[in-house]
Amino acid sequence: MSTFTPTSRTQVKRLPKRGAYDRETVFNILDEAFVCHVGFVVEGQPYVIPTNYGRVGETLYLHGSAASRMLRTLSEGIPVCVTATLIDGLVLARSAFHHSVNYRSVVILGTARLVENPTEKMAALRLFTEHIMKGRWDQIRQPNEQELKGTTVLALPLEEVSAKVRTGGPVDDEEDYELPVWAGVLPLPVTPTAPIADARLKAGIAVPENVTAYSRNGSPKP
Amino acid sequence: MSTFTPTSRTQVKRLPKRGAYDRETVFNILDEAFVCHVGFVVEGQPYVIPTNYGRVGETLYLHGSAASRMLRTLSEGIPVCVTATLIDGLVLARSAFHHSVNYRSVVILGTARLVENPTEKMAALRLFTEHIMKGRWDQIRQPNEQELKGTTVLALPLEEVSAKVRTGGPVDDEEDYELPVWAGVLPLPVTPTAPIADARLKAGIAVPENVTAYSRNGSPKP
Repeated sequence: MSTFTPTSRTQVKRLPKRGAYDRETVFNILDEAFVCHVGFVVEGQPYVIPTNYGRVGETLYLHGSAASRMLRTLSEGIPVCVTATLIDGLVLARSAFHHSVNYRSVVILGTARLVENPTEKMAALRLFTEHIMKGRWDQIRQPNEQELKGTTVLALPLEEVSAKVRTGGPVDDEEDYELPVWAGVLPLPVTPTAPIADARLKAGIAVPENVTAYSRNGSPKP
Repeated sequence: MSTFTPTSRTQVKRLPKRGAYDRETVFNILDEAFVCHVGFVVEGQPYVIPTNYGRVGETLYLHGSAASRMLRTLSEGIPVCVTATLIDGLVLARSAFHHSVNYRSVVILGTARLVENPTEKMAALRLFTEHIMKGRWDQIRQPNEQELKGTTVLALPLEEVSAKVRTGGPVDDEEDYELPVWAGVLPLPVTPTAPIADARLKAGIAVPENVTAYSRNGSPKP
């Protein structure tokens, strides 16, 4: 796949070898994560709010209650930054200085557009559900007209985008390799445990396979 | 413990029953998470960058290379928002509309102060290491003068702070409880897997117990 063109705002300046601009890396991160942090400015004060999202092609969709301050603010077309981060493990070096974290993150800059077309809006709602769990949309009651109206959906074009990725073991100062210190990586994957049935679950309903076999590890781990 | 006083900027407006302002809730979240998302504004554009942090008492410390644009920008005393989020599980409802995520987040607003006192700065470096792994500081080579100088440390007072927490199972519309849909929670804990020794690890160095028995689940899970 092709690459996004870095701008002066998205070019990774610190440790540039960690920067990535190719669509495959960016899309893999956005598809494996499902919570992003949305940054916006109100009266000079930045706010950073965690929220769900979905991606289709070159568009990231955000949603929330029509009453949400964040959604109302963003729908005015102000600059936004959406960052999605996956934490893969702790990098345990021989010196404090070289301790690090293996992570993969994507930063998107732009301006969000309010989605008003009901077909695009419903497709986005499907996307949010399918993004947290593939196959779920066809198992559940889909949104009615009132729920569709009560939800605000925003679309953010994937244009000014960069990824930053750190993988692998510690990189120590040459003289520190002689130290009697255990060094390596402690992987920290997100691993589902047994599903907890709702207290009011009707008798005789089996746990579907997309719940029991759930995994977010769609893209290769370092 | 006492509570933070919500301001018009930190009061949780959407779903106010999810808001929490007590120090115990806020501190537990900040101590269990170890990556936060830092929001700041440059020429009207918000940026949201993931980074490590540490907390001691009523102060959150951030750090980075002295060459980091983010650190240099923040040390000018501009408004900042730091958000730490823990994802606990997927909330699988009977309708698409009531799908949700169990999470715990803290939002801190304020202005960061550059830490120049070498004693406070070294204590913060210890904190960063101990925050990702308790006991690690005494196992490794601690920072030398050059490393101390090459690191910028910022202190953000915990004054304008709120937490937001969602726990428990799905809350469906009354008529939907009759649907033949599996509903419940899928917990998504971060679970360490076997440590990966560095390729250049000296022979005969055992994996320490703070690595083998690592867990971030310091605070009670929902």
